[in-house]
Amino acid sequence: MLIKNAGGEKFLIELLKKEFHCSAKNVLKGIGDDAAVIQKDKNNFFVITTDMIYEDDHFSLNYFTPKQIGIKAMESNVSDIAAMGAKPVYAFISIALTPDTTIEFFEEFIKGIKFSAKKHKIMVLGGDTTHGNKIVVNITLIGEAKKQDLVFRDGAKPGELIFVSGNLGASTAGLELFKNKIKGFNSVKKKHLEPCARTDISNKLNKFATAMEDVSDGLASEVKNICSESNCGAIIFEKNIPISSETIKAGKTLKKNAVDFALYGGEDFELVFTVKKKDEKKAKKFGFLVGETIKEKKVFLLEKGKLNLMEKTGFDHFKK
Amino acid sequence: MLIKNAGGEKFLIELLKKEFHCSAKNVLKGIGDDAAVIQKDKNNFFVITTDMIYEDDHFSLNYFTPKQIGIKAMESNVSDIAAMGAKPVYAFISIALTPDTTIEFFEEFIKGIKFSAKKHKIMVLGGDTTHGNKIVVNITLIGEAKKQDLVFRDGAKPGELIFVSGNLGASTAGLELFKNKIKGFNSVKKKHLEPCARTDISNKLNKFATAMEDVSDGLASEVKNICSESNCGAIIFEKNIPISSETIKAGKTLKKNAVDFALYGGEDFELVFTVKKKDEKKAKKFGFLVGETIKEKKVFLLEKGKLNLMEKTGFDHFKK
Repeated sequence: MLIKNAGGEKFLIELLKKEFHCSAKNVLKGIGDDAAVIQKDKNNFFVITTDMIYEDDHFSLNYFTPKQIGIKAMESNVSDIAAMGAKPVYAFISIALTPDTTIEFFEEFIKGIKFSAKKHKIMVLGGDTTHGNKIVVNITLIGEAKKQDLVFRDGAKPGELIFVSGNLGASTAGLELFKNKIKGFNSVKKKHLEPCARTDISNKLNKFATAMEDVSDGLASEVKNICSESNCGAIIFEKNIPISSETIKAGKTLKKNAVDFALYGGEDFELVFTVKKKDEKKAKKFGFLVGETIKEKKVFLLEKGKLNLMEKTGFDHFKK
Repeated sequence: MLIKNAGGEKFLIELLKKEFHCSAKNVLKGIGDDAAVIQKDKNNFFVITTDMIYEDDHFSLNYFTPKQIGIKAMESNVSDIAAMGAKPVYAFISIALTPDTTIEFFEEFIKGIKFSAKKHKIMVLGGDTTHGNKIVVNITLIGEAKKQDLVFRDGAKPGELIFVSGNLGASTAGLELFKNKIKGFNSVKKKHLEPCARTDISNKLNKFATAMEDVSDGLASEVKNICSESNCGAIIFEKNIPISSETIKAGKTLKKNAVDFALYGGEDFELVFTVKKKDEKKAKKFGFLVGETIKEKKVFLLEKGKLNLMEKTGFDHFKK
């Protein structure tokens, strides 16, 4: 059976979780969160994530510069480490280049890696360069955290509030603008080309967030993940989802609803997090209230006063 | 300028070494050895490597089963950890699958990963599954070692002996047999399809080897790496290079010299190591004497009584 018919990426992840279940004492988290967590010494942990991006699936040479490919590869990994409440420290970069790739391309790509590495204070310690028919970049990023800094997906309880750290939907809107060859909307397009992982606030959010995840596949998918790991459900307030006016305008031009970009698009790399009701005020300094967790293990969307079951999930490369 | 004209993979690695030079106190090795080494606690180190394999460059679906792709991806990484004298512990697997990939393929691939993981006692803690037009696998492997266990490329001194842990050339011979559609030679072909990293001896070799590296790009290339990192030269004794009789026979059938497979082929995943002369007897229990290090910073091949400068290097995917 083809993967797309078996359930796409979700099917693959569930299979990996089952096949590689790990109960070792020094492994705090294996597969199933934004990153794995292993013990470093008594009080410190290494937090490890890996992410692959593939030409024409995650970026196109028609609109990405090589530097932007480097930035995107780094930021998507940094975002996973930030979502754990950890600090990124060491990176390992693998890249496949094609017979047509020039050294100038590679040098610009390295500039993108260095740009993100400098911004987030990351040391690049290893890599692999190889050859293929499309450009593929894989980064493994190791972060560090003390136990009390770590925030997992499974810490939410019913009756908590769901926040998101910033505007959503721009990355998908940007991609659609490129695909449809629509001019202008440069600030929206830039969100697709140069995402920014939220290390600037993750070290503050981890003091009071009960669960956290980054928005890589759309808000719907991330809230579902938190709910399934935390054994609860949620209501998302459609009218509260933060979307920039430029992204809304882009949606109109594209004849699409920008809310769908936010819910089912992806790669915004903002943080979704849950907090106890008593921490609402604190949370509002860092983001927007977009929902609440409930006991019933389903995720609903409150739109125009109606509560509808949210069945659609996030972007899936196998189903496009 | 195209990468192949600028020097291929060697050029890329040199650029990475220069761009990402790292002098942090807790980083014992950055780019430039088989793996990076970072401090875990007072006496223990993490040893980290990453390796990407790409369909039609590193494996072909015409002769690899999905299980064998999993095995090859794992063993090539395990081999790097073994070459450092470390013990592999944690693996992170990224894989891009194509629109045609079936769940049965993915399940068999996982069996290959599990086969190697079980053999080398490795826990798989994370991964990424994505989509592309060819199958690409990237593995990041984390090993552990005490300081005294670690063996680097830069520890050789002139006047030492060079050993290799087993027969060379079979993987390249196997690949050539497949490409030329020659039947038989199953034991040679199997060396290409199911390499075996030498964790069985690396924990013994690391007690007395002065420098060590795994044979991923051919003996010539690996000895050159050890020499350039150790600031010395070497003489390789052509007639001592261990090659199985089956591989020699395969070479004859292919009308090629099996010694060239050993010197300039790759992916045998044996260990090359240098030892002090007083340790010759110990080293002979684990391998074959294939050369010695010299003061002059050049690598020579002693063939039929003549000393020839070895100018050719190993396999380069950009130059094939």
